[in-house]
Amino acid sequence: MAPAHDHSKQNAIDMDKARFQTSFSIAEVRDYLYNGAAQWRRREQIREILSKDAHFDKSKRVYATRKQLYIRGQAITNRLYELQEIHRWSPDDVAIALSLSDENLSINLHNVAFEPVFRLQASPELYSKYATLIANRGIIGCYLQTELGHGTNVGHLETTATYIPETREFEINSPSLTSTKWWIGALGKSATHGVVQAKLILPGGNDFGPHLFFIQLRSLDTHQVLPGRIIGDIGPKAHGAYAATDNGFARFDHVRIPKENMLSKFAGVTDEGGYVTPPHAKLSYGGMLYIRSGMVTSAGWHIAKGATVAIRYATVRRQGELGPDGLERQTISYPSLHVRLIPLLARAHVFIKLGRALSEGFEALARGLSSGDTSHLAEMHVMTSGLKVLVSTTAIQDLETARRSMGGHGYSAFAGVGRMYADYLPAATYEGENFVLDQQVLRAALKAFRALFSMTPPRAAASLSPSSYYLRLLLDKQLVPPELGPDSWTHPATAILLLEWRAALLVHEATQTLAAPDATATQRVSRAVTEAFVAARVGEMIGGLSKTLKQREAALVEKVYILYLLTTIESALVDLLSFGLFRAMPTGDPPRSRDPTRALRLAIATLCGELLPQAVGLSDAFGFSDWELDSALGVYDGNVYETLWARAQEEPLNQTEVTEAYEASIRPMLLRGQSMAATKPKL
Amino acid sequence: MAPAHDHSKQNAIDMDKARFQTSFSIAEVRDYLYNGAAQWRRREQIREILSKDAHFDKSKRVYATRKQLYIRGQAITNRLYELQEIHRWSPDDVAIALSLSDENLSINLHNVAFEPVFRLQASPELYSKYATLIANRGIIGCYLQTELGHGTNVGHLETTATYIPETREFEINSPSLTSTKWWIGALGKSATHGVVQAKLILPGGNDFGPHLFFIQLRSLDTHQVLPGRIIGDIGPKAHGAYAATDNGFARFDHVRIPKENMLSKFAGVTDEGGYVTPPHAKLSYGGMLYIRSGMVTSAGWHIAKGATVAIRYATVRRQGELGPDGLERQTISYPSLHVRLIPLLARAHVFIKLGRALSEGFEALARGLSSGDTSHLAEMHVMTSGLKVLVSTTAIQDLETARRSMGGHGYSAFAGVGRMYADYLPAATYEGENFVLDQQVLRAALKAFRALFSMTPPRAAASLSPSSYYLRLLLDKQLVPPELGPDSWTHPATAILLLEWRAALLVHEATQTLAAPDATATQRVSRAVTEAFVAARVGEMIGGLSKTLKQREAALVEKVYILYLLTTIESALVDLLSFGLFRAMPTGDPPRSRDPTRALRLAIATLCGELLPQAVGLSDAFGFSDWELDSALGVYDGNVYETLWARAQEEPLNQTEVTEAYEASIRPMLLRGQSMAATKPKL
Repeated sequence: MAPAHDHSKQNAIDMDKARFQTSFSIAEVRDYLYNGAAQWRRREQIREILSKDAHFDKSKRVYATRKQLYIRGQAITNRLYELQEIHRWSPDDVAIALSLSDENLSINLHNVAFEPVFRLQASPELYSKYATLIANRGIIGCYLQTELGHGTNVGHLETTATYIPETREFEINSPSLTSTKWWIGALGKSATHGVVQAKLILPGGNDFGPHLFFIQLRSLDTHQVLPGRIIGDIGPKAHGAYAATDNGFARFDHVRIPKENMLSKFAGVTDEGGYVTPPHAKLSYGGMLYIRSGMVTSAGWHIAKGATVAIRYATVRRQGELGPDGLERQTISYPSLHVRLIPLLARAHVFIKLGRALSEGFEALARGLSSGDTSHLAEMHVMTSGLKVLVSTTAIQDLETARRSMGGHGYSAFAGVGRMYADYLPAATYEGENFVLDQQVLRAALKAFRALFSMTPPRAAASLSPSSYYLRLLLDKQLVPPELGPDSWTHPATAILLLEWRAALLVHEATQTLAAPDATATQRVSRAVTEAFVAARVGEMIGGLSKTLKQREAALVEKVYILYLLTTIESALVDLLSFGLFRAMPTGDPPRSRDPTRALRLAIATLCGELLPQAVGLSDAFGFSDWELDSALGVYDGNVYETLWARAQEEPLNQTEVTEAYEASIRPMLLRGQSMAATKPKL
Repeated sequence: MAPAHDHSKQNAIDMDKARFQTSFSIAEVRDYLYNGAAQWRRREQIREILSKDAHFDKSKRVYATRKQLYIRGQAITNRLYELQEIHRWSPDDVAIALSLSDENLSINLHNVAFEPVFRLQASPELYSKYATLIANRGIIGCYLQTELGHGTNVGHLETTATYIPETREFEINSPSLTSTKWWIGALGKSATHGVVQAKLILPGGNDFGPHLFFIQLRSLDTHQVLPGRIIGDIGPKAHGAYAATDNGFARFDHVRIPKENMLSKFAGVTDEGGYVTPPHAKLSYGGMLYIRSGMVTSAGWHIAKGATVAIRYATVRRQGELGPDGLERQTISYPSLHVRLIPLLARAHVFIKLGRALSEGFEALARGLSSGDTSHLAEMHVMTSGLKVLVSTTAIQDLETARRSMGGHGYSAFAGVGRMYADYLPAATYEGENFVLDQQVLRAALKAFRALFSMTPPRAAASLSPSSYYLRLLLDKQLVPPELGPDSWTHPATAILLLEWRAALLVHEATQTLAAPDATATQRVSRAVTEAFVAARVGEMIGGLSKTLKQREAALVEKVYILYLLTTIESALVDLLSFGLFRAMPTGDPPRSRDPTRALRLAIATLCGELLPQAVGLSDAFGFSDWELDSALGVYDGNVYETLWARAQEEPLNQTEVTEAYEASIRPMLLRGQSMAATKPKL
């Protein structure tokens, strides 16, 4: 008998072949994704340091309890700032190191929620007292907004901050169980201080709504919780995710803080208890916008991780029919599979670059905001709302698509994608519940529509902001949707225009049916408006490719971006067909098809087929190391079966041949069964 | 200042009100779901016993390691069979108790995979030797099919069973790393025996493909692994789910077993090594069909659990706008939310009853199969394949919809729905990867189409099996799709017919484009065919309601079933619009809508609105106790905030005021920061 084919050796061969057929410069595309070779090298250097440091070893974490994972997270955090000193890392370097830690660390809440809010809104006096301590983590802070009974809707928070003119103090109080601050990251066991959202009550009982107050929570000497506060961890999260973060609760029992502790840069209280009006009521949203603005790029990197793992695994996994080499086919060769996976690559590439472009814009807006310029705040708010919904929903779905594409092995914890999914999952509900955000996008779209048509003649297209530029299509009766022809899907223009038409017609429809909207209108409009905005940006990105990339790479990335647009069109088919926007010309191939969507579907399949030989290269361009991915199925060299085998040997259950459960439970069960079988008649 | 409204007291008031407005007999609908009051009472009695037994306490499991959860699972299993003795439970009672245990126990693999395959395929000799022991769990078995390198495609398994005529033995061997049996439930640390799928090699080296062999794995005296076997647990699963199941691996090094150990009821080997042909090649699929046939009802119960939790929480959670009572509105009152949740109720109700009807049919078919009647095997195979994809995909999605509908708190482990999701998730990939199953449905549909038109004149509609009955629509040129009018969505007929037309036209399209199918055709056709089949069954179920239920309850359940049909239509809109099946009449309300799907969307919103006052009642009818749901957000009395608070207090991190991480990591970090802040210039 001939020796069996060695499938596990074949894996490395398959992976080598896939890389050999890559026909573009991976390094160039990688540098493009990382905004330059220098950025990439910096990241690689930091990664080398972390991956060799025992604190950042990931091999045991899957067996740890949640408590151990929290303690490990704090050890990682401390080590990270030790390394900062040792290697003289810049703040940007530390941010890179934090993102590389592959843990949702409590300190992120200090850095991303607590510190920015403090910087933006503390009075000069409070700022000078604490800013240096905060910047160096001499105190660790958290941002206490959400309550047990109230989420994003800050207007209904129950916690009160009552001003006592006699002592020039505020009294922070939790009047009910539901007013307990809840979900507050870093509060549970770590933070020494916090910024708390509370209703400002001035003498006479007048409620001025939510304001921010700086409050100490734990002793700097003993870390004991200070009197009047009841503080703890809210317990584990779904899927065991976010274990390192001590999301916490806090109740305040008439805790006094000095008047200076109000974050009063934009709204204050006089010594006597008079209210000093803020210049712009929405200024306190600044913090949330800051967090949201990074979500597009972050979603892209999350999809990128899942896509890298799934594409590598599908490249080495063989299954089903025999291929030309006499072996079962690589699963990625099945159109049904790669038509699901290559679009993940496309979305990752688009979101990473789109997010970078947007973040730069947001930073400029935020600078204006801090000096009181609020002219772009509404626009910024709508854009981030819609984008947050779009990218979080998409990334969650894509990570699960990646996991599921790997069949049975995708359900192993060692596959790693489950963990990516679980840690990313709260993006759908934190920083604004997606449904609430959709409503805001709808409202803004209706407002823009009304503003446009409220004048006679209506305002010119040039007056439209980027988020409502699609409305220009309604201004000119001469404009008609594009007719679909054989070339519609090879260039980006038709897809972009169709998505803009869809937004325009859906917003128009919404204005016509305001009196009796159906229950799905909000979500549809929000999605349509946001996708039109993104499509236009992708069009601009395509236009700029030749300036940044060489010809071969630019042509490849253009294809990737076009695939993004086509799959967006595919997901929008219900709207496009409903509103008569999908007037496909007969394709004649084959002549008897009655499906108007067939040309689009074939175009997507063709484009995926064209990108298929570059799929491993395009995922290599994300630049992830094996340590970063922590996935047995996504290893760079393709040796997935050896890796799964090796990892399984570390399972604690395998450290004793006979399980403890044997004496306690299995043996009694077997003995009982054997004695029953002996006494009972044969079946 | 007036005392704050007590939101947590309001919860119980809201829940009471919701129950007060229930206008049907919950008990009657519950008995209908459980197939009779006696079944329900039996379940309730068993539940009472389990929920009071300390072995089945769930309060600590969220903090346990995977190893502890496995050991707990075995203790639960042993206890369960002790209770069987104590209470003289029937096998059906034990099955109820197992389903109530709320754990994926290893013993399920013995009961559902190992024993049925053994019963179906063991020779009379082998059967008489082991059947009584197996039935009483005097030995514990597993079913070893999947290998590290191969999944559902049994044809390519590598493990060999070579017949040695000299000693009348088979030699079981794992020739490569990838031939390692992998994912085998109960193998890792529990099973004493197994049925292994291996390629039968007869003298001369002829490979007869996969066959089944009975093999001992561990000593019955010491539980040590027997010589020649390398066995262990494959490690943790995604999201920490399925922790109690010891999915295992096994390698065999030329292990000899007696010839009698071949499961040879349908295929055997002569003493000399000649092959005895089986009467039907697909007989070995029997085991998988058995498992799949229970999946419809099971999916229904899973959705039911998630829906119960989400609907109860949305009934007591208040958020956003103020309602007529001056309080924030109950979140379930928002159409955008209940239009997402009520359809979950509908799908749960449909799948539970549909599954029961199908299982009865399958049992009859299985009885025929065991006596050699294979005439319905193909039909049964197609139906279970399509249904398995449909219900698993749907239930996974619905559980996540339920979880996400609860906003931030839905991400707490205490919400419970994350766990339901994670434990159900592998349904998408086990027992046949969904994509492979879709292909089988497509292939069967094309075959049925060809068979129908291969005769002149084509065969009559009466010859069509239930799974291809929709093809009758293509037989008569006079038949045209229904035109949509104002009443289309108030009765089931139009929706069912539309779904059948969609299946017919998609299958026809598939036959026309076979030469160049697009990459999504398989999935679309499979879905369309299966949904047409289900829709027709739902139509029959509606027809039978008045025989089982009183008028009021029958009318209510009819509405629930119609909602199922309408939301299926909604999810099929791309197909319906593409193939010109959605020819909506102008609704005139409001006159200027251009959206042909508007009437459907409004009908769904209206129906959800009508069912809204019954939503809590309809979920109460599932009959879950708090112990069963194990969800702080789904408690029967609505006291969600008290429950969340109480559960958080048990978090291990909260058992010491100052965390162990303080001395080790937090304090060094704070001190470093403070010293840096003291020496650095103020920012």
